[in-house]
Amino acid sequence: MAVYTEVSDDELARFIAGYDLGKLLSFKGIAEGVENTNYLVHTTGGTFVLTLYEKRVDVADLPFFLGLMEHLCARGVTCPLPVRDRNGNVLNELAGRNAVLITFLKGVWPKRPKVEHCLELGKALARMHLAGEDFPLHRANALGLAGWRPLYDKFAERTEEICPGLGALIATELRFLEEKWPTDLPHGVIHADLFPDNVFFLDDKLSGIIDFYFACDDALAYDIAVCLNAWCFDAASAFEPAKGAALLKGYDSVRPLTDRERDAMPILARGAAMRFLLTRSYDWLNTPKDALVARKDPADYVRRLKFHQSVGSIADYAPQLIS
Amino acid sequence: MAVYTEVSDDELARFIAGYDLGKLLSFKGIAEGVENTNYLVHTTGGTFVLTLYEKRVDVADLPFFLGLMEHLCARGVTCPLPVRDRNGNVLNELAGRNAVLITFLKGVWPKRPKVEHCLELGKALARMHLAGEDFPLHRANALGLAGWRPLYDKFAERTEEICPGLGALIATELRFLEEKWPTDLPHGVIHADLFPDNVFFLDDKLSGIIDFYFACDDALAYDIAVCLNAWCFDAASAFEPAKGAALLKGYDSVRPLTDRERDAMPILARGAAMRFLLTRSYDWLNTPKDALVARKDPADYVRRLKFHQSVGSIADYAPQLIS
Repeated sequence: MAVYTEVSDDELARFIAGYDLGKLLSFKGIAEGVENTNYLVHTTGGTFVLTLYEKRVDVADLPFFLGLMEHLCARGVTCPLPVRDRNGNVLNELAGRNAVLITFLKGVWPKRPKVEHCLELGKALARMHLAGEDFPLHRANALGLAGWRPLYDKFAERTEEICPGLGALIATELRFLEEKWPTDLPHGVIHADLFPDNVFFLDDKLSGIIDFYFACDDALAYDIAVCLNAWCFDAASAFEPAKGAALLKGYDSVRPLTDRERDAMPILARGAAMRFLLTRSYDWLNTPKDALVARKDPADYVRRLKFHQSVGSIADYAPQLIS
Repeated sequence: MAVYTEVSDDELARFIAGYDLGKLLSFKGIAEGVENTNYLVHTTGGTFVLTLYEKRVDVADLPFFLGLMEHLCARGVTCPLPVRDRNGNVLNELAGRNAVLITFLKGVWPKRPKVEHCLELGKALARMHLAGEDFPLHRANALGLAGWRPLYDKFAERTEEICPGLGALIATELRFLEEKWPTDLPHGVIHADLFPDNVFFLDDKLSGIIDFYFACDDALAYDIAVCLNAWCFDAASAFEPAKGAALLKGYDSVRPLTDRERDAMPILARGAAMRFLLTRSYDWLNTPKDALVARKDPADYVRRLKFHQSVGSIADYAPQLIS
């Protein structure tokens, strides 16, 4: 939510001169992205987002992220396209950071997603999964099943500082997930963090998907489970059936879910709730109360997890889809 | 340096619909402005800055600031122009704040101003003073001579927390300024905060002046004195004669300085250094170390003040201008 690395006008003008984008007209630090520094850059050649990668992003992962955006753009998915410089390079250096210029996407993310947004989202997610089928690079999901217990171990002794009973809830659920987690689902490239602030709309039409910095290989249906958690609960963390149904219907209309995927949806949704419960809990305990970044309440995901635990089958998310 | 007030996509779309600016295409919170919340807004009608006034800005002052920008734009000064809505209003409400849309200015502020920037700045400042001559509204300078002692009294007992001897330096200097401050200089509308981050350049040509939220009535030459402090010292707070000379030469070429203004330049420069020494000292003591806003070191202005105390006449700033 803030500019971490400052760039001077002279430095930036020299950087831009390395691209075939004309002259620098303006740049503004934008209050987006918790992990990286982002500037909105206007040149005589157009509008771009300049991203400086801060230390939380592993340089070794950048070819995967940048290559994926190029791959998806080439297949008609509207996502930011990394711009190549005069030497054909995507990744450069600026102000001591790895830096890329990406194309600017029009659109506005929905603060309160509507049912129609969820329908569009489902279709776009399925299209993205199909477009990613032949992407040749691979990246493990560091925040998938294998990553949950090590992350939990980092703060297991402090769960009572967040809410009473949280430790027992997580411990029991982790054992369940480790025992029952499905391993035979269709795999591919997933976004893994497709929250509303990463999806732009214009006139209720989906206009772009951004922020691929959690993208990885995993079960495709797990990406849907993330969206169920991120898009289909109200402000009080109550499930909104019309939104869940729209999301799943939209997805299924483009890439029909297999029987195994339908069967697995409840446990995938529990896993996705666990992933965000764990990272939010860790951040809650490790972010100073007055830090730059607003802390997100882990309790939102306790409520989601409990809902998913109560679900019998995919029909509880989307009555039209019988498991 | 941060977005304080969040605006939802629906709220903003309704707000934009009140203007004849077409449809909302995107908006991004920008990391500029310590006092207010600023968004960069793209519509089919163009690019604009949306400013939401936070509580530090007095609503009663807004007609002065907004009217001044309109007045100066109409007279050829490139500054942001407040946009009128379909009812002819400039000031509206959004997300519980007073809000205005202003035109977006191209350009980049110079992180390390060069001599040529100072020459251009001097000319533009003089043009702004001339353009403001017939502006009908008035606003006292809350951070002028009369405001310095009350501000100092708020932290006088804590000066040793900043640096040893600071209390004695300020007390002695305040007495000097109160006794000798010139009151017979040409008055008019001044910017009063024309630091490099408020002045945009394109190809070393000045392309715009922004942030009129300290503008007020005061001695015109005091505005030059602020710029001497803000533009003409190096990173170690040593005076750079070539920059001072360029600033004064540029100004004098458009609006020739009167003899009284020339005589007064050293004391005006001391006063301007005092103004920023006082506000930086107050902020230093009252801003949490880990706050959103970077604290600016008051010592920079101790060094500037000591330099101005050593100055004999305007010729020490600009040898070509004999007092």
